[in-house]
Amino acid sequence: MSSTPATETEYLPQGPSNVLVINAGSSSLKFTMYAMRGETIRAKGIVERIGLADPCLVYERFDGKKLKEKVSVRNHDEALRVICDRLVDPAVGVLANLGEVEAIGHRVVHGGEKFRDSVRITDEVKRIIQEMATLAPLHNPPNLGGIEACAHVFGDIPNVAVFDTAFHQSMQPSSYLYAIPYEYYEKFGVRKYGFHGTSHKFVAQATAAYLRKPMARLKLITCHLGNGCSIAAIDRGKVIDTSMGMTPLNGLVMGTRCGDIDPAVVLYLVRQGMSADEVDRMLNKRSGLLGVAGIGSGDMRDIIAAAESENDQAKRALFMFFHRLVSYIGAYETILDGADAVVFTGGIGENSAYVRERVVSRLGCLGCFLDKAANEAAVGRQAVISTAESILKAVVMPTNEELMIARETVRLLSPAA
Amino acid sequence: MSSTPATETEYLPQGPSNVLVINAGSSSLKFTMYAMRGETIRAKGIVERIGLADPCLVYERFDGKKLKEKVSVRNHDEALRVICDRLVDPAVGVLANLGEVEAIGHRVVHGGEKFRDSVRITDEVKRIIQEMATLAPLHNPPNLGGIEACAHVFGDIPNVAVFDTAFHQSMQPSSYLYAIPYEYYEKFGVRKYGFHGTSHKFVAQATAAYLRKPMARLKLITCHLGNGCSIAAIDRGKVIDTSMGMTPLNGLVMGTRCGDIDPAVVLYLVRQGMSADEVDRMLNKRSGLLGVAGIGSGDMRDIIAAAESENDQAKRALFMFFHRLVSYIGAYETILDGADAVVFTGGIGENSAYVRERVVSRLGCLGCFLDKAANEAAVGRQAVISTAESILKAVVMPTNEELMIARETVRLLSPAA
Repeated sequence: MSSTPATETEYLPQGPSNVLVINAGSSSLKFTMYAMRGETIRAKGIVERIGLADPCLVYERFDGKKLKEKVSVRNHDEALRVICDRLVDPAVGVLANLGEVEAIGHRVVHGGEKFRDSVRITDEVKRIIQEMATLAPLHNPPNLGGIEACAHVFGDIPNVAVFDTAFHQSMQPSSYLYAIPYEYYEKFGVRKYGFHGTSHKFVAQATAAYLRKPMARLKLITCHLGNGCSIAAIDRGKVIDTSMGMTPLNGLVMGTRCGDIDPAVVLYLVRQGMSADEVDRMLNKRSGLLGVAGIGSGDMRDIIAAAESENDQAKRALFMFFHRLVSYIGAYETILDGADAVVFTGGIGENSAYVRERVVSRLGCLGCFLDKAANEAAVGRQAVISTAESILKAVVMPTNEELMIARETVRLLSPAA
Repeated sequence: MSSTPATETEYLPQGPSNVLVINAGSSSLKFTMYAMRGETIRAKGIVERIGLADPCLVYERFDGKKLKEKVSVRNHDEALRVICDRLVDPAVGVLANLGEVEAIGHRVVHGGEKFRDSVRITDEVKRIIQEMATLAPLHNPPNLGGIEACAHVFGDIPNVAVFDTAFHQSMQPSSYLYAIPYEYYEKFGVRKYGFHGTSHKFVAQATAAYLRKPMARLKLITCHLGNGCSIAAIDRGKVIDTSMGMTPLNGLVMGTRCGDIDPAVVLYLVRQGMSADEVDRMLNKRSGLLGVAGIGSGDMRDIIAAAESENDQAKRALFMFFHRLVSYIGAYETILDGADAVVFTGGIGENSAYVRERVVSRLGCLGCFLDKAANEAAVGRQAVISTAESILKAVVMPTNEELMIARETVRLLSPAA
């Protein structure tokens, strides 16, 4: 089981200890059962292919004991019941009974402008999450499905919603507005929201702890590089800009998403006869590294392997990824008027010394110089990978969105909150 | 008549001297008659409202003599004949006869990938310009109309096409490709082309001359800020990135264009029932400063006046303009690995000390510091507006696209070319 940076183990000593974290997708239900004293994972896993053929459960206990089994579930309620059965199972479980679960934290993708922070879930909160489904039609409804399932299975215990968008709500209008007629913002909420906020917040806090600097005196550029990629400029704990937009399509080159593109390209394709749905699928599912490299994979490891085998298209895809990321780092360094550190996280950011080297080696004019040995040694663990004389530090910091959701849940439910 | 920076008066002493520059729009025909020895304008003007109600001609001679008259013209041929009548008119003309015109230079918006440089016009060149109309349906056909009119009126003299896109053709695939499936580039030419290339090239050359540095040792960030706005990163004479895209819609906040926006916004609006044409018009004609400020004007002078009268929406529009521009300057500084100068040109860039102050005062972390007095004094003329200790210089440099087209025409037709 992957370890988490033990930066803030005594995060908030009061409040609930046994916290279940739920991340419900359209056909999956992911869970992590935390003991918050010590921030340890007691069990975690996922039910996949809910409502499809051959659903299955993967369940893993703190001691490494692991199950993978076919299950018969048609919806999130049934998936959650299967998970709960295992959590209290005498052979593989970690709880004496479900009553030990004191609180539940939910990942919710889109909180719009209504939620600037995590929130304890009420009927009103659920209504607004449903309302926000116009902005995140693929995510908010299943997120709500997970919340409803917990109400059915756990009854009246506290539930907290933690939004991917909330951390970015500190942006000013000059960052979040698009330069289109203002009425589209007022009437339809067309603006930049930003995503991966839970991850950006986690790594910002973890980096502050690691560098032993208070957040109130730190300017950070956080690069979340996974299958989805986004970057945030964080000025003393507040996001001032981020690369994803009204949707997660915008910004950096991603595994299968295009990131920045002339909006006229969409108009051009629609006029060529493609439907909005077809363009949407193409830009979200068939673009990015996958679309440029054309090797049947958008996984950075495959792209790097192909580039090292002299595949020109894979090289091109990589160069685009680097070019876009370096451009954003430069932009954010400037709007922050000089950052303290650029932070790499996410599957690529934490594990690919190659990607970090190619990016950091182009940040010399910002006063950031790579410590090659430190970079090579930093695989999946926190590290400073810039030289001692660097003005802008480069840092690797593993993210942990589940733990952040658990921490937010505790924070919201603590007596002081 | 506006003066031009006399940086390269003896540009190329051989080749044609009397050069006519033509810029043909859908309902207008603009001309400038140059004497290239000394690079002086002998006459210039425009026919407007061609094919519409009440077309009119504005004609201005080198000595300030000026006409404004209604004319009866239905197409570019007729408009050009009216212009030529005035050029040889005994009272207001500057030529004894049309035979004195030795060559004609044409502005052409889109040269696609076929034209990396200006080119002498042949039937084949005209065919390709027509082909490129799929990428610039509003511009290339009238540009071609101007070329045809010149063939009809002037017969067999040399004509040269100077493309808005050509200077940007030095970009590498990592800059010009979009991260969408590669087939859209191969089959339809969907990529970044960039525009305003003639202006970026002119100010890059003029800045090199002004700073007395060879272009081969200069890294520049050129900001063309007019009603349309674009920015280019120029590494030793070669553009390595620019903010406009497949069309002029992308990039900076402009007078009426949106610039960068999540492409999913276009999909959202199409799904809300807007047609591609409606979205196109909205993003091109009703967005930018005009759309955000909502004061019925996208003119920077009006926006600044409204902001100074405490109009909050106008302030917001301004802040967006500055934020976007500062972000791009930071990005380009980084991909250039440190530039020598950031150059302001275009109506706003040359004349608005206010805009330049608000932008340059945010470039401190790049080593660029404003010389306030020099900035205030630099209105419509070349100047260094950064302090002596600045690592990154800030420069004001008036652009002159017509002169650049005339120079390109001479260069292409000179014996050495």
